[in-house]
Amino acid sequence: MSSRKIVLEKVDQAIEILREKDVDMWLTFARESSQLHDPSMSLIVSPELQMTWHSAFILTKSGQRIAIVGRYDKENIQLTGAYPEVIGYDQTIRAPLVEVLRRINPECIAINYSENDPAADGLTHGMWTQLFRLLEGTPYASRFISSESVVGALRGRKSKSEIDRVRAAVKVTLSIFDEVTGFLRPGLKEVEIRDYIHDKMTDRGLTTAWEMEFCPIVNAHPDSAIGHAAPGDNRTARGHTLQIDFGVSKDGFVSDLQRMWYFLDKGEAKPPADVQKGFVTVRGAIMAAAKVLRPGALGWEVDQAARSFIMKAGYPEYQHATGHHVGRTAHDGATVLGPKWERYGESINGEVEAGNIFTLELGVQVPNRGYVSLEDDVLVTATGLDWLSTPQTEMVCV
Amino acid sequence: MSSRKIVLEKVDQAIEILREKDVDMWLTFARESSQLHDPSMSLIVSPELQMTWHSAFILTKSGQRIAIVGRYDKENIQLTGAYPEVIGYDQTIRAPLVEVLRRINPECIAINYSENDPAADGLTHGMWTQLFRLLEGTPYASRFISSESVVGALRGRKSKSEIDRVRAAVKVTLSIFDEVTGFLRPGLKEVEIRDYIHDKMTDRGLTTAWEMEFCPIVNAHPDSAIGHAAPGDNRTARGHTLQIDFGVSKDGFVSDLQRMWYFLDKGEAKPPADVQKGFVTVRGAIMAAAKVLRPGALGWEVDQAARSFIMKAGYPEYQHATGHHVGRTAHDGATVLGPKWERYGESINGEVEAGNIFTLELGVQVPNRGYVSLEDDVLVTATGLDWLSTPQTEMVCV
Repeated sequence: MSSRKIVLEKVDQAIEILREKDVDMWLTFARESSQLHDPSMSLIVSPELQMTWHSAFILTKSGQRIAIVGRYDKENIQLTGAYPEVIGYDQTIRAPLVEVLRRINPECIAINYSENDPAADGLTHGMWTQLFRLLEGTPYASRFISSESVVGALRGRKSKSEIDRVRAAVKVTLSIFDEVTGFLRPGLKEVEIRDYIHDKMTDRGLTTAWEMEFCPIVNAHPDSAIGHAAPGDNRTARGHTLQIDFGVSKDGFVSDLQRMWYFLDKGEAKPPADVQKGFVTVRGAIMAAAKVLRPGALGWEVDQAARSFIMKAGYPEYQHATGHHVGRTAHDGATVLGPKWERYGESINGEVEAGNIFTLELGVQVPNRGYVSLEDDVLVTATGLDWLSTPQTEMVCV
Repeated sequence: MSSRKIVLEKVDQAIEILREKDVDMWLTFARESSQLHDPSMSLIVSPELQMTWHSAFILTKSGQRIAIVGRYDKENIQLTGAYPEVIGYDQTIRAPLVEVLRRINPECIAINYSENDPAADGLTHGMWTQLFRLLEGTPYASRFISSESVVGALRGRKSKSEIDRVRAAVKVTLSIFDEVTGFLRPGLKEVEIRDYIHDKMTDRGLTTAWEMEFCPIVNAHPDSAIGHAAPGDNRTARGHTLQIDFGVSKDGFVSDLQRMWYFLDKGEAKPPADVQKGFVTVRGAIMAAAKVLRPGALGWEVDQAARSFIMKAGYPEYQHATGHHVGRTAHDGATVLGPKWERYGESINGEVEAGNIFTLELGVQVPNRGYVSLEDDVLVTATGLDWLSTPQTEMVCV
């Protein structure tokens, strides 16, 4: 029932955003969503419901909420409470869809396609052509625009309940990291650490924030492949770092965090200078990004603050973005805090807004020591930042 | 490792299908597949792996298998063993993608869009426009065709391991139905029956074939909403039927079955004539479809055999298709055994092929008694049919 309440919140918020952006209508058009689930369906319909036949979810800036669905799905949509008008059909959605468009006669209709934001790109190309075919002979297909800015705002501006859920996911992740510290010793395989973390997670009835095979990512050795590789047979060892990238999914919302450990060598009371320099630089770069991360900042500006900090310190440029939205998924679409590389498209020109929750994350390789990388989750507020995760300020030594 | 083996089988099979259909190249183009997972990725890459950056999986009729992925995904794709050539990139996929297309110079390139088959429609519209942009100034975008026939054949023609898995899912579902019979008595709520079935399923370490809230569907009362509605507070009662639509997911493959019970009234030794007529008609209609379900039959022909049988018996026409593919999902795309209604598009003109696994399913409403509906899963062979589920030949009386 709580997921249902969030859907009602998001539908209200969507209508406000349509008004703010002066978009007459937002149309989410879906089918067989068990095969391919438009991410917007989770926002404005249900995180679980799958639509079998062609389905249209229509919100307008004047506040209308209309669903057109196959007859067998009608009752389920009525039960969401989000659509006062639910129209059922049998053989084709064409007539009821055209009728609703005629009745409202919107000047522009936002639909879910976007080159820049995967979370706003839920309409398949086959469904796109089908929509044109269904609306043949009407003026409506010529009024389509991308819903990118609507979806980006709706997904990105977290409601209070959404923030509470991410906060709870972050909190439990940090408590699992604390338990990991007690478990660590030299000679542990990456896969053993992964299994330990999975046990602690399932004990709490939680699942991973991204695919289980790669969550956590565990880098225990200077030769471990960094990035998205699964834990392997490398073992923790004295004189090496350990980096873990992990998040949980709790009540439909996730965390995404990285933490660092160092295995003291014989005679060492603290990490050696090279490890220490790496850690301080990474932490410093994240703080530099945090300083720029304010409502109105552009994605690439935040990235640049961290990236130039790292490069000025003499480390090679990291090959990923400095941050991304976190929410229902670990990579939650919309504005990316990334560099001006082609694969990020326009996503890095987006504006940071109050209510956004971002990761701040980056790392450096310390030769013969291992990977040193940190990641925190932060909420952007009107006046600054709220750190959902307490930043790690020094290496945890084992 | 067994899922990995199936991927290798399917990649080999895909190359054979490209030869058979004379398609030079099949390109699966994906990104952030944790948001939206192209169903073809499960066939030819991995059911679990999520690609973060733009990724291209290329198979050709001359047998080439090439993957182009972001640097952090390279090792994972190499580990699948399905792509001898894995090209990693950092800032944009453009250069390596164009280079591979130049090298192969295909006359036609099948990409994943389809109006008719949701399982072949994994490319979003934003990714479609992006693909055109990436290939600007080259001749390749003008060579795109839909991969619908390739994906339909590949998904539809089950390999031996795939058939074994569906068979195992069907078998365990039937054993759960048997246990349900022992549990039944008048006065049980639909939700209690659902909970019993969920317990039996989780005892076996299995999950539901479709979203758990609607799996099983339980219709215990003449007024229960049929179709995709969740179980409710209606109770089983003497003189009423009970219909359950249920399937499990086991090792990545599913079952989808419906079974019937009747609660004998005082003095009854068998179901009354109206219930009996409904059951015999439904069973007869399914057998009529089964008789037509052979390699070469068209989807709508199979549907018509069952549909006309029901209507000749004086029942109203059911408002859904007579059958659909079953495999990785309960609605597994490709050819639908359905009527010529607009919402089915061309999917009902597809040809049945050996190796296909279909449901055969339909029902009638018996006034004041309840819904009477059956569903079996059948494998099409070169010469006929292999019933994966033993058909129910009479009402189970409680």
